[in-house]
Amino acid sequence: MIELARGAREAGRVLGTLPGSVRAAALRAMGAALAARHDEIRAANARDLAEAEADGLAGPLLQRLRLSDKTLQYMHDRLVEVADLPDPLGVVTRGHVRPTGLRVMRVSVPLGVIGIIYESRPNVTTDAAAVCVKSGNAVILRGGSEALRTNVLLADIMAGAATESGLPAGAISIVRTADRAAVGELLQLDRLIDVIIPRGGKSLIQRIAAESRIPVIKHYDGICHQYIAADADPAMAVALVVNSKCEKVEVCNALETLLVDAEALHLLPTLAAALHAQGVELRGDARVRAVVPMLPATEEDWHAEYLAPILSIRVVDGVDAAIAHIAAYGSGHTDGIVTGSLALADRFVAGVDSASVLVNASTRLSGGGDYGQGAAVGISTDKLHARGPVGPEELTSYKWVAYGNGHLRE
Amino acid sequence: MIELARGAREAGRVLGTLPGSVRAAALRAMGAALAARHDEIRAANARDLAEAEADGLAGPLLQRLRLSDKTLQYMHDRLVEVADLPDPLGVVTRGHVRPTGLRVMRVSVPLGVIGIIYESRPNVTTDAAAVCVKSGNAVILRGGSEALRTNVLLADIMAGAATESGLPAGAISIVRTADRAAVGELLQLDRLIDVIIPRGGKSLIQRIAAESRIPVIKHYDGICHQYIAADADPAMAVALVVNSKCEKVEVCNALETLLVDAEALHLLPTLAAALHAQGVELRGDARVRAVVPMLPATEEDWHAEYLAPILSIRVVDGVDAAIAHIAAYGSGHTDGIVTGSLALADRFVAGVDSASVLVNASTRLSGGGDYGQGAAVGISTDKLHARGPVGPEELTSYKWVAYGNGHLRE
Repeated sequence: MIELARGAREAGRVLGTLPGSVRAAALRAMGAALAARHDEIRAANARDLAEAEADGLAGPLLQRLRLSDKTLQYMHDRLVEVADLPDPLGVVTRGHVRPTGLRVMRVSVPLGVIGIIYESRPNVTTDAAAVCVKSGNAVILRGGSEALRTNVLLADIMAGAATESGLPAGAISIVRTADRAAVGELLQLDRLIDVIIPRGGKSLIQRIAAESRIPVIKHYDGICHQYIAADADPAMAVALVVNSKCEKVEVCNALETLLVDAEALHLLPTLAAALHAQGVELRGDARVRAVVPMLPATEEDWHAEYLAPILSIRVVDGVDAAIAHIAAYGSGHTDGIVTGSLALADRFVAGVDSASVLVNASTRLSGGGDYGQGAAVGISTDKLHARGPVGPEELTSYKWVAYGNGHLRE
Repeated sequence: MIELARGAREAGRVLGTLPGSVRAAALRAMGAALAARHDEIRAANARDLAEAEADGLAGPLLQRLRLSDKTLQYMHDRLVEVADLPDPLGVVTRGHVRPTGLRVMRVSVPLGVIGIIYESRPNVTTDAAAVCVKSGNAVILRGGSEALRTNVLLADIMAGAATESGLPAGAISIVRTADRAAVGELLQLDRLIDVIIPRGGKSLIQRIAAESRIPVIKHYDGICHQYIAADADPAMAVALVVNSKCEKVEVCNALETLLVDAEALHLLPTLAAALHAQGVELRGDARVRAVVPMLPATEEDWHAEYLAPILSIRVVDGVDAAIAHIAAYGSGHTDGIVTGSLALADRFVAGVDSASVLVNASTRLSGGGDYGQGAAVGISTDKLHARGPVGPEELTSYKWVAYGNGHLRE
């Protein structure tokens, strides 16, 4: 493990000095190599799936492990999309000539070496590599054991294409064992690895944060809300709630709790019917159930990240009550309001302390692509360093550079 | 302790919503209140000093504890200077209208509550309060026990003026006990405090980083270098080395190791004489001592942050050797080159991975004031979140805000 990390460190030093055009060309070559070897990737994935099924892995986890044609295409497209983004390195993010004539610049530089520890979803392998190469960081990947064959093959294909394009060996590496002890070793290498990004369930992230000697950018749960204000457009409200909840249920920016204003109760029957039609189980508080019969929601439901076709619904009295509910139960990930009122929207945006606050938009839009970052290695619920989608720019640090002419401190 | 932190949390929530003009006015009022109560402050400081002397505190520590007229004036001026800086909150640091019409903005917001744990120097009390108020964060101060009376009085004066100016009570608070257990308690309050900034010796920072459940912005040692290139202007080189080493010896951006190019050895006698005249003890490698007799430098010297009138000197063969020495022994804080060559300067700037890289300027200029930040709560040697001086802008996070019109994820 220490050899792997040393190789990554050495590669990171070189990577950050390569021109952006070389890193972009490598990303395109990585995409092309993946496309050329679809059959092999599918075969490796089939073997992982067969073993996981034999081991009795649960349905939703199998679902996350499976690489469909659509996912493979998406992985390829993301690499190309990230290649086309502006170079996040060498950007002067602040600068001025001091009255003394000292010329001061703050210039973006890579962080160095990023460790990504993640669970089943193999597209993290390609997204993470894309974002790290783009930002001039070496990456050490460590995926879930059930996806080992798929992930190792994806990483090897990308690493090969990267080296052929002039990136240093070690720029993309992967832990080639399912042994859990490997993660423990990795987390001790604080002199070689600059940041750890865990992707997965809350318990995985808590364990890593507790154990790591390396700084961790955390991606905790997404207990996401939509608040339907009194004046919400009925058709828009229904469409947004259904899309936020149902477009993909197992992801962190899927809707988990719906807050309906007491003056928008007339929308409840239509909302409930639309969600029922999508197979969503509804759990409501007493005021909700007085309008539409459904299972009762308990205190636990307001704290729940279902990641499943279940939605809790609560009635709130006005925007401040919605903000208060989100402050008490939300996870600071993504929360939205549906309203036609600019004043209500502004109040909600100012009052909700979350990484993403949306007005009249699906919670599912709080991702890197929709914010123009191309791809993200995750959505941070931390406030330090990176908040929200972690794309290439978020994996940079900076250096202060000052040019003087014999400038002294007086 | 938990009550203090809860008060700070509550205050932080309000602080971030106040207009920048209110926060700036509070800073000016805080400066005026300090100026009006100089005599009281001096008296409290005299009592701290008397007790510290009786307790046998070492000379340099007494020196750091003493509030001179100059320091008091400096503390006042910094508050006013920070008041006059642009508001770091509500700045759109990124934004665009997506092709879909979704309007996306990334807006700066406060971090929330900052805990500052520091050793003797009482001007950290005022600088930290200034930077936190400016950035809309509540601050919990915890200074060294030997400066307790001074720090508590400074904090109380500032808190009083802040409240009178309309800031919430709890915006500025201080731990009123010298009890060490208080720090341990503070470091567990990860639901109330957003970031801990320790200021002090390496062992203090290591202890806090190891013990804290709250993210820490670390300020490790400053093993700062100047590299005198072959073509360095002799007078400029002497002036820069003397200023970097002697302007203040006990600070993190003071010079600790001088690297002299093998082709600039003729400068050594003048450099040594100028440093001797300032009472600096010199320790050199064999090649240095062949030119100027002095104590030998050992391997330990290259690793040393003296914070004292001692300087180690080494001969290096060219800019790459200088970069390699800094990579091996430096602490990534502040390193400089003295040269007339743009090519050498560029190579040094690109090759040295430090928070501040200076060309023809004193290492002592790597501070918040000289970079236009007004004041800093410290100089970060971390790469995550903040690197180099930590001023008001570095104590902000951001929020992604998106306005749509029924935008769905397809």
